[in-house]
Amino acid sequence: MSQLPTVGHLIGGKIITTGERAQDVFNPATGKAEKRVLLAPKATVEEAIANAQAAFPAWRNTPPLKRARVMGNLKVLLEKHADELCALITAEHGKVLSDALGELQRGIENVEYASYAPELLKGEHSKNVGPAIDSWSEFQALGVTAGITPFNFPAMVPLWMWPMAVACGNTFILKPSERDPSSTLRVAELALEAGLPPGVLNVVNGDKEAVDTLLTDPRVKAVSFVGSTPIAEYIYAEGCKHGKRVQALGGAKNHAVVMPDADVANAVSALMGAAYGSCGERCMAIPLVVAVGDATADAVIEGLKAEIAKMKVGPGTAPGMDMGPLVTKPHFEKVKGYVDQGVKEGATLVVDGRGLKVAGHEEGYYLGPCLFDNVKPGMVIYQEEIFGPVLGVVRVKTLQEAMDMIDAHEYGNGTCIFTRDGEAARYFTDNILVGMVGVNVPLPVPVAYHSFGGWKRSLFGDLHAYGPDAVRFYTKRKTITQRWPSAGVREGAVFSFPSTK
Amino acid sequence: MSQLPTVGHLIGGKIITTGERAQDVFNPATGKAEKRVLLAPKATVEEAIANAQAAFPAWRNTPPLKRARVMGNLKVLLEKHADELCALITAEHGKVLSDALGELQRGIENVEYASYAPELLKGEHSKNVGPAIDSWSEFQALGVTAGITPFNFPAMVPLWMWPMAVACGNTFILKPSERDPSSTLRVAELALEAGLPPGVLNVVNGDKEAVDTLLTDPRVKAVSFVGSTPIAEYIYAEGCKHGKRVQALGGAKNHAVVMPDADVANAVSALMGAAYGSCGERCMAIPLVVAVGDATADAVIEGLKAEIAKMKVGPGTAPGMDMGPLVTKPHFEKVKGYVDQGVKEGATLVVDGRGLKVAGHEEGYYLGPCLFDNVKPGMVIYQEEIFGPVLGVVRVKTLQEAMDMIDAHEYGNGTCIFTRDGEAARYFTDNILVGMVGVNVPLPVPVAYHSFGGWKRSLFGDLHAYGPDAVRFYTKRKTITQRWPSAGVREGAVFSFPSTK
Amino acid sequence: MSQLPTVGHLIGGKIITTGERAQDVFNPATGKAEKRVLLAPKATVEEAIANAQAAFPAWRNTPPLKRARVMGNLKVLLEKHADELCALITAEHGKVLSDALGELQRGIENVEYASYAPELLKGEHSKNVGPAIDSWSEFQALGVTAGITPFNFPAMVPLWMWPMAVACGNTFILKPSERDPSSTLRVAELALEAGLPPGVLNVVNGDKEAVDTLLTDPRVKAVSFVGSTPIAEYIYAEGCKHGKRVQALGGAKNHAVVMPDADVANAVSALMGAAYGSCGERCMAIPLVVAVGDATADAVIEGLKAEIAKMKVGPGTAPGMDMGPLVTKPHFEKVKGYVDQGVKEGATLVVDGRGLKVAGHEEGYYLGPCLFDNVKPGMVIYQEEIFGPVLGVVRVKTLQEAMDMIDAHEYGNGTCIFTRDGEAARYFTDNILVGMVGVNVPLPVPVAYHSFGGWKRSLFGDLHAYGPDAVRFYTKRKTITQRWPSAGVREGAVFSFPSTK
Amino acid sequence: MSQLPTVGHLIGGKIITTGERAQDVFNPATGKAEKRVLLAPKATVEEAIANAQAAFPAWRNTPPLKRARVMGNLKVLLEKHADELCALITAEHGKVLSDALGELQRGIENVEYASYAPELLKGEHSKNVGPAIDSWSEFQALGVTAGITPFNFPAMVPLWMWPMAVACGNTFILKPSERDPSSTLRVAELALEAGLPPGVLNVVNGDKEAVDTLLTDPRVKAVSFVGSTPIAEYIYAEGCKHGKRVQALGGAKNHAVVMPDADVANAVSALMGAAYGSCGERCMAIPLVVAVGDATADAVIEGLKAEIAKMKVGPGTAPGMDMGPLVTKPHFEKVKGYVDQGVKEGATLVVDGRGLKVAGHEEGYYLGPCLFDNVKPGMVIYQEEIFGPVLGVVRVKTLQEAMDMIDAHEYGNGTCIFTRDGEAARYFTDNILVGMVGVNVPLPVPVAYHSFGGWKRSLFGDLHAYGPDAVRFYTKRKTITQRWPSAGVREGAVFSFPSTK
Repeated sequence: MSQLPTVGHLIGGKIITTGERAQDVFNPATGKAEKRVLLAPKATVEEAIANAQAAFPAWRNTPPLKRARVMGNLKVLLEKHADELCALITAEHGKVLSDALGELQRGIENVEYASYAPELLKGEHSKNVGPAIDSWSEFQALGVTAGITPFNFPAMVPLWMWPMAVACGNTFILKPSERDPSSTLRVAELALEAGLPPGVLNVVNGDKEAVDTLLTDPRVKAVSFVGSTPIAEYIYAEGCKHGKRVQALGGAKNHAVVMPDADVANAVSALMGAAYGSCGERCMAIPLVVAVGDATADAVIEGLKAEIAKMKVGPGTAPGMDMGPLVTKPHFEKVKGYVDQGVKEGATLVVDGRGLKVAGHEEGYYLGPCLFDNVKPGMVIYQEEIFGPVLGVVRVKTLQEAMDMIDAHEYGNGTCIFTRDGEAARYFTDNILVGMVGVNVPLPVPVAYHSFGGWKRSLFGDLHAYGPDAVRFYTKRKTITQRWPSAGVREGAVFSFPSTK
Repeated sequence: MSQLPTVGHLIGGKIITTGERAQDVFNPATGKAEKRVLLAPKATVEEAIANAQAAFPAWRNTPPLKRARVMGNLKVLLEKHADELCALITAEHGKVLSDALGELQRGIENVEYASYAPELLKGEHSKNVGPAIDSWSEFQALGVTAGITPFNFPAMVPLWMWPMAVACGNTFILKPSERDPSSTLRVAELALEAGLPPGVLNVVNGDKEAVDTLLTDPRVKAVSFVGSTPIAEYIYAEGCKHGKRVQALGGAKNHAVVMPDADVANAVSALMGAAYGSCGERCMAIPLVVAVGDATADAVIEGLKAEIAKMKVGPGTAPGMDMGPLVTKPHFEKVKGYVDQGVKEGATLVVDGRGLKVAGHEEGYYLGPCLFDNVKPGMVIYQEEIFGPVLGVVRVKTLQEAMDMIDAHEYGNGTCIFTRDGEAARYFTDNILVGMVGVNVPLPVPVAYHSFGGWKRSLFGDLHAYGPDAVRFYTKRKTITQRWPSAGVREGAVFSFPSTK
Repeated sequence: MSQLPTVGHLIGGKIITTGERAQDVFNPATGKAEKRVLLAPKATVEEAIANAQAAFPAWRNTPPLKRARVMGNLKVLLEKHADELCALITAEHGKVLSDALGELQRGIENVEYASYAPELLKGEHSKNVGPAIDSWSEFQALGVTAGITPFNFPAMVPLWMWPMAVACGNTFILKPSERDPSSTLRVAELALEAGLPPGVLNVVNGDKEAVDTLLTDPRVKAVSFVGSTPIAEYIYAEGCKHGKRVQALGGAKNHAVVMPDADVANAVSALMGAAYGSCGERCMAIPLVVAVGDATADAVIEGLKAEIAKMKVGPGTAPGMDMGPLVTKPHFEKVKGYVDQGVKEGATLVVDGRGLKVAGHEEGYYLGPCLFDNVKPGMVIYQEEIFGPVLGVVRVKTLQEAMDMIDAHEYGNGTCIFTRDGEAARYFTDNILVGMVGVNVPLPVPVAYHSFGGWKRSLFGDLHAYGPDAVRFYTKRKTITQRWPSAGVREGAVFSFPSTK
Repeated sequence: MSQLPTVGHLIGGKIITTGERAQDVFNPATGKAEKRVLLAPKATVEEAIANAQAAFPAWRNTPPLKRARVMGNLKVLLEKHADELCALITAEHGKVLSDALGELQRGIENVEYASYAPELLKGEHSKNVGPAIDSWSEFQALGVTAGITPFNFPAMVPLWMWPMAVACGNTFILKPSERDPSSTLRVAELALEAGLPPGVLNVVNGDKEAVDTLLTDPRVKAVSFVGSTPIAEYIYAEGCKHGKRVQALGGAKNHAVVMPDADVANAVSALMGAAYGSCGERCMAIPLVVAVGDATADAVIEGLKAEIAKMKVGPGTAPGMDMGPLVTKPHFEKVKGYVDQGVKEGATLVVDGRGLKVAGHEEGYYLGPCLFDNVKPGMVIYQEEIFGPVLGVVRVKTLQEAMDMIDAHEYGNGTCIFTRDGEAARYFTDNILVGMVGVNVPLPVPVAYHSFGGWKRSLFGDLHAYGPDAVRFYTKRKTITQRWPSAGVREGAVFSFPSTK
């Protein structure tokens, strides 16, 4: 076991591969441990914080344009190393390579947006707020900031956070998921290559000990988190208790409403990717379809069945695969348990993926696509976030019924409506209590120049992730009010000044 | 006692004057109780929340322009009722009438800014985020929001909060200070007269029971607080623990740096108002002067002594007064105790206001202006917020020494520098760890169209009070991504449509 | 004749009622001259310019907040004087009182927007554009600016221009239409009452001599114009030739497309007001309906006929009127001639309003509503702006045909589409070569916080009228780049400074 | 002669090297013709316009992010080809290589700013402008746009224009200076390599015939120009007469004010580069120093003399040169004539560069640095733009005198003040009638994320070049107002819809 390659930390510009605690990193396509990842003790995290603190003064004084250019360079490097990064993602997360590339591409878009920093950091300047008094605001960096990220997007979610944080002049400690840490770390190395000074971005792998150090250390000024709702809630309460600003993104259970006037073929095609892409391990996945009218429901289910029948499931590295394995053995068991539970609760299992065997990969964590009909609020498979390839169809009579159901759900991350009707779309988008809404777009993940965030228990905090909100999250305003008394320089008394030169 | 007029609550558009618990409201100029204020139990606060919740759907659907116009109307009413409101402020807070008018005027400016809502609520619209896909963001109202405000600005600080909150489409529960509640309530009545629908703004007087109800009730989505740092910290931790967004503004200890090249006469004149105005009961007051060089210090102290000698202290309603009484008897004792403490600690008491008697108002809470020289970090009078007419001079050798001292202090609300030198001002404003910075401006309170907020332990949260930040605090983004599939309407297949009309 | 009241000029805060040239102002409801309006010679215009020039330095230095408050005051006064102003509008323009009130209300909204000036005038501030170098932009006032406005909105169109111009710190010369000058002048008097200093807003009545003086005088820095396209083109070329910035809004011929899936009852109701409101004397009126499909056309025409039959035409001051007279006798003749021409060209005159007589007002300029079917491109009544109560229906087979027709027309001011289909609306709004587009909104006049402007030959210039564009039109950027060399003040060498104090 | 390489056009993605008219391109360092440049006849320009017109529909529909990425790619290519491009600049313009690199770098910054297009093109979205009515604005592309650029910055000034124009979705015709066309054309080739589709950017070399074709062809919607004031004025009047939007930047005569309290050593060092860099052939060069007080003037002149004595003048390609030759023989004669004129007018020629001979480059257009003292308003060398290495010192008694002088000058492009005093700087920057103002910054060229533009006769138009203003110049607003009538889809009547699918 000890011969496995070690995934370490990046602190002060150096890779650190020694440490007392470590755990295995598995390839979900094969079920084999292929690496070990260090778990940082408190002292190691504090060392990272100290490095970040030391790097801060020079970095915050670096002109924004220069900081932005490092992001421009990084973008070029990420494109150049895309194959390498996707291979790392797939080897540890399991998603198919094309999906890994999609993730990376979205991450690159955030790097691009961070490269707009000179524009984004403009303050507001007011002349004559009073007679001969001017006032302006600046967006100043916070100091050391931190991010804690989940396994499902090891490349993208970290890139939601630290590029904007450092483009704003902060330094950063990233604690990625310990299940698939390699691509995250590799991206950080490329950032150094792109010109980021040592200490500006630090990566520590770890578990709760590392997290709690970041939450309590007074040198850390802000924490961004993406993960499950219970942890998000803990992070928010704990970080705030220690006086920090915190944005904590949690779970989701996104409903797609299909209206009777929708283009069903188009909707089905969109739903397939949204439900089963990346095994449903996405906070913007669609695990629930709400069909308005039985005719709509029947048509949607027919369409889905036909499409599911064509799906190819196998190792993410194999050509032509639509879906790879789940991320870990325990997660596989958990998702499978949800399917069992749904059957017990009385939902109709239209397609059962539980028996899937992938030849030559019998130890991989593969679960075939599952489709339930007649899912109902109150069922566990309706209420909880499954994070697996399990799609449920709920039947309702009206749009209003669909909307009441969505609004009553604990989560409010994403949702979408399939319709051709302007009025239905406007009513839905205006009123639904969900932060990201699609109209005929199944995964309404905002582009990098807008911000990402759910409502209700899907996000704790007041500023969303990436985009314009991130600029405010990673800076604090300083407002200056200025008046100049006469020193006689202007009026001519200045001729007595020479002695001071 | 029971014949005293009662200050009650405003809930659902109605004044409520019955309740079990109440406490006296004193006139600090005379030391007499003149009113009683109800202290709302949990049930009353919940009733206010229920009213706010009920008023929300219609109000959030009211076009922003109409909401903004209520603010325009309120501005006119506040100007019309200025004398009445100032009389209420002075009778309960003690500040002189001209100072009350200044406070009211600042409050009105926030009402004006809230009337810009149609401009401030514009979202961002992006065409073609992908082929034929558009995306835009909306700033949607949160629902029920709340504010908890301090005694020192009973008219102004509430107007920092609720006008913008309601202009953004929220409804609001205000819990003002129980020491001087009358002007706050009167302003709320005028808001109804200006056209605010019942239930949109509710005022509950109360104590910790009311506060804790607001912090824990899940219907309250956001809490704004202004007060002392220990309470601000409690509010922030507790509100966040309950999943809310919170901005909590705390204490201050603002330093004014006087440079050797400053216009001393101008600086002294500015410092007098900043130190002793409103008895120093302002979070933007200047209780500390940091003089760079002994010559500067000597000149400043000479100037201050001369100005203090001319000050008139007496009831706020008497003509020509510069300073009124402190707000309460216990606060008077506390401030006086700080002066005693300063003497004990070895600071030089240059002017001693402790013996002041105001003829005919012997029971009023008057303390004359006090001036200390040789104040030093470490002394209690240096570290703690006194909130009284006590100004201390600290002597340093260089600007850097002054800045290190300021940065080491717990608070970072406001600061200013007196200089004629562009470089010194730029270095100071850029680097100092304080949120609001003046250059030759002693009280750099941002104008209403910029935002108010300190750094370090003067503010908990990530968005500042009023101004542009308040728009974000009182709204949440919704991001919509939209694509329209063809329904054949455009291409001409539409001629088969008639049956649906 | 000489006993008729004289409408004069407002120059330097004073009404001037003497002058050599004048012409009659008629009441279109009766055909009688009721006032005379002075026509300013060059010297009088130059006097106005001199007054505006003299008022500029103090006004540009007045804090934006104070300038904005004058607009707030004016808003209150305009609401208070609404009846008086509407009576003046109707007496000279002829439109019904309720329509005059609608116009005034739209004008007031522009006054409100101008009162947001402190927000709108914020420049952009960039820290560290280079090491220790800062840069920011200011929106500085231009100096003397001018506006030339048409008869059809004597209250509203001037309020598109001068409130924002003066809120930005400029002074202004307004030359209103000489056909209905009274309400315009009265509004200007109210502005003085609201606190605008003398000389900041000047009104000169006149004809081409006045216009040419404004276009050529080098002290006038910017000219805004609304009128017909040939004059707009002249104003643009001539003003630009003299080095000024110019925005010149011209004519229109707005098409409303009705799709087969539209709610026809709703569309007909909307079209009635858009076609016949204010006798069609609006640059945003709908004189052309493009019906997609004959069934649509038939249904629309049936609906319009039924509605037209219910219309009441008479003096604008009479209760319950839908439509008043045309503005002048020559205009009446011109519009009637277009109807004759349409018949000659072969369009089908479905409703003929030419024979209308209004009892007791036989000399008034009344023309009943006219409706043509089978209007076609190439006909004079299709190509030219009629500016009268004449609506033509064009029949097409597809939306694309409708759009090609609209795009081929000389004008591109406004247009709208009636449909329920999201895709049709998106395709139409994205591609149509028109500046203001409605979806189920017949008169898509932007609200005051957006900007107004057509495309093609409907607007010459690069910035639209009112709203955010107007802020840029009425200001010029100044960009400052600043670096401070050390004067030793900060480092301590300052102790040698005393001699300079 | 005919063997000289030909610099042709780039039209529709192809280089065209045949044409009837051509003229020589000289190397100013040697005085030898080294290339020939084609001069496009009207037909060739029209062909370019036709290509641009044809490329427009697909390009405007390309998502802004994709257009922006082409700019990102171009930035990388420009950095990669920097040496090649600088060699081309120096070979035709004459400036030293380090200066060519500075120019290129500034141009690259504009390419970077254009790559922010997704952020810059965001429109404004307003919910509920009326009940259930929404409105938003879009920044739509204009179509075919054009730029006409001067010899002095063959790489940079074109990059001020077309990258933003095409990032906004327009297509472009560039007509560079015929004196040094090679680097401009090479940059355009790199843009194709970066992914710009053929026809989106076209380059035509030519003279007045080409210019007039661009000004009159109705397909060209906007023209940007940088050059001398008489031509700028012609371009503005002529383009506007043909209904286009035009921004025309003209000449300059920038004054640097040196105050008695300035850091003279720092000022002198700054002035050297500003006056003699690129032989003074910059519209932001400093040809005039206004010294406040004779002591200041004497110190400045002493400092300049000492620095001039160290300057190295020679071929731009030689290592260590500070200054190269002037651009052409006629320009050399003209500048020399100005020096003769200054002597005749009575200014004191402190340093005379007229006799300079560069060994081995006797035919090059070299003029040594010249320095005048006692220059006065009214002298030709004070009034006119010399565009050569000739610096004049004007002596004044007060800052006000300096400012009155600057404000009275025809031009208002740039200016700067050297002082340590905050008040003097604020008074100067606020009041001076100049568009770009430096405080201790001699060449206050705004960074790429602010806009460039002078006042008075230095710029005709209302929007400045590059930066935020350029986004508005290269787009037109479309404002959409939208309301959706119910189609029954939402309420449930939709179940009768199936027939339409």
